[in-house]
Amino acid sequence: MTIHEKDSSSTLKVLLIGSGAVGGFYGAHLAKAGAEVTLLCRSDHAVVQRQGIVITSIDPVTKAEKTLTFHPHRVIRHSDEYQEQADVILVALKALPEIDLPALLAPALPTNHPRILLLQNGIGVESPVANAFPHHEILSGLAFVCLNRVAPGTIHHLGYGRLTIGRYPMGSSPMAEQLAQRFQVSGIPVQISSQILRDRWQKLVWNAPFNPLSVLGQGATTHDILQCPATAQLAAEIMSEVIAIAQAEGYTLGPELIQKNLNDTERMMPYRTSMLMDYQSHRPMEIEAILGQPLRVAGARGVTAPRMATLYALLQLLNRPSTVPQP
Amino acid sequence: MTIHEKDSSSTLKVLLIGSGAVGGFYGAHLAKAGAEVTLLCRSDHAVVQRQGIVITSIDPVTKAEKTLTFHPHRVIRHSDEYQEQADVILVALKALPEIDLPALLAPALPTNHPRILLLQNGIGVESPVANAFPHHEILSGLAFVCLNRVAPGTIHHLGYGRLTIGRYPMGSSPMAEQLAQRFQVSGIPVQISSQILRDRWQKLVWNAPFNPLSVLGQGATTHDILQCPATAQLAAEIMSEVIAIAQAEGYTLGPELIQKNLNDTERMMPYRTSMLMDYQSHRPMEIEAILGQPLRVAGARGVTAPRMATLYALLQLLNRPSTVPQP
Repeated sequence: MTIHEKDSSSTLKVLLIGSGAVGGFYGAHLAKAGAEVTLLCRSDHAVVQRQGIVITSIDPVTKAEKTLTFHPHRVIRHSDEYQEQADVILVALKALPEIDLPALLAPALPTNHPRILLLQNGIGVESPVANAFPHHEILSGLAFVCLNRVAPGTIHHLGYGRLTIGRYPMGSSPMAEQLAQRFQVSGIPVQISSQILRDRWQKLVWNAPFNPLSVLGQGATTHDILQCPATAQLAAEIMSEVIAIAQAEGYTLGPELIQKNLNDTERMMPYRTSMLMDYQSHRPMEIEAILGQPLRVAGARGVTAPRMATLYALLQLLNRPSTVPQP
Repeated sequence: MTIHEKDSSSTLKVLLIGSGAVGGFYGAHLAKAGAEVTLLCRSDHAVVQRQGIVITSIDPVTKAEKTLTFHPHRVIRHSDEYQEQADVILVALKALPEIDLPALLAPALPTNHPRILLLQNGIGVESPVANAFPHHEILSGLAFVCLNRVAPGTIHHLGYGRLTIGRYPMGSSPMAEQLAQRFQVSGIPVQISSQILRDRWQKLVWNAPFNPLSVLGQGATTHDILQCPATAQLAAEIMSEVIAIAQAEGYTLGPELIQKNLNDTERMMPYRTSMLMDYQSHRPMEIEAILGQPLRVAGARGVTAPRMATLYALLQLLNRPSTVPQP
């Protein structure tokens, strides 16, 4: 299936920043639902300009494949090339300290004050953007999806896909409703949340153990981690640490989440986390969004999280210049 | 220099168990000092029988080499081949749970009740032997040495060499004095300790952080660990955990040990720990002696050591069958 977008004044106009797996996948589904999606992408510009972004969904059991090709309305290289009036700017970049998101967004922000949807992992991703653009409505989103960018402009979708979207820092938003509707039309289940920050901590309950353990376990899948009794217990203890930090921030997450996360992960296909895929592909890992920022919150709230701190230190050691990940 | 031992009734008779780096190095120095050293070794038997054990000391700065060749009095394959009256049995095997030391020693124990010197790393290595042979004097020793077994019967000595020897569980021993004298004659400085268990905890202050971090940091040297501020801090915190467990066991180690260990390590040449060398050579790691046993003591004493527990779990995850260490 191929989607070519046409310009239309009644169309939802989206500026998508990020041509990685998450950006390509969700941008494609907005386009499929009729949105006019302009893609800002740098490194993959030529490939995406030529072929679009090809998303192959692979059924984890039957291995049956289904392909969706996403041809953006326009593909631009720099945000100052965008002179249109976007309704929403969708940021689907990795949450990395070296990316200055306000500086990247500033030249692209039209005068109509589009909403900014941050579809990123981890804790603390919204505040730099919210502080830089106090007059813009910020939406925050979480993607529960298993994707792998196998080549520029080529994405494998290996499972799941649902989104949680809410207004930052809390509350309701007509734009969140409108986006949810678009996504749902294209087959992406969306949960609207009035407590998106709480939901970020809840997602972190899974990410904080499994992402670092997969890397430090040198390619450990979720099943490897759970089949080793010591790391299964460690994963549960790290989940407790996340819940304690969230509690100190005012977000109550029930302790039953721990067993639920372990059970759900046990039932999943053995899964290589996004941090592991980043590490093995020599891409930067989201260490700060997943561990550093939560640990800074813990420090400010007087909560100790020694297991998360240990993983955080070890990942920083792995990031030393001389380390070459195993193939 | 080559040493051929001659039988003599006045000679110190030693049965050396273990032809690895530690056994070869210290056995060679006892032989150099005139002891009659019979070597029990299995896998390297043929090579050692033919060529002896060749120890090349390499000056860490000048790279100047000095070679010592150790021809044991006899090289035997099984402990029941030993029918002599040893004065001392020197155990220089890795401290691994899969090695049943009492079963290995039993057939070799002559009727004269030789002393048993355990030259091994970690915590809890003596009690299985002491329990199995209550009528034998057990000596316990710690080697501060940088060795690398580069091939069967071939050892590189990269620095240091001193020993601490004491009677288990404490006190004095004429045999410890006699061994110290022999070693000192051959150039190995020896400290006699009346508190060898305390000394084991003191050595663990270094081993518990640096050995696991070097492996989990995927080949990190001591300098890599100290140059990364996060792991330098983590190393200090793990040292604190060891000191707290030792304190609960009744061994007081001053907190100034932490800074001293960090400073001394900073001044050393960048060093690959023995656990790292074991891991990269696909040999079993001393995870239990260095982390598991101390953590069991901590549990029994009601002390928490979450950072050590995190490293312990991660090393167990690395030990899963599917993991292949990077070359």
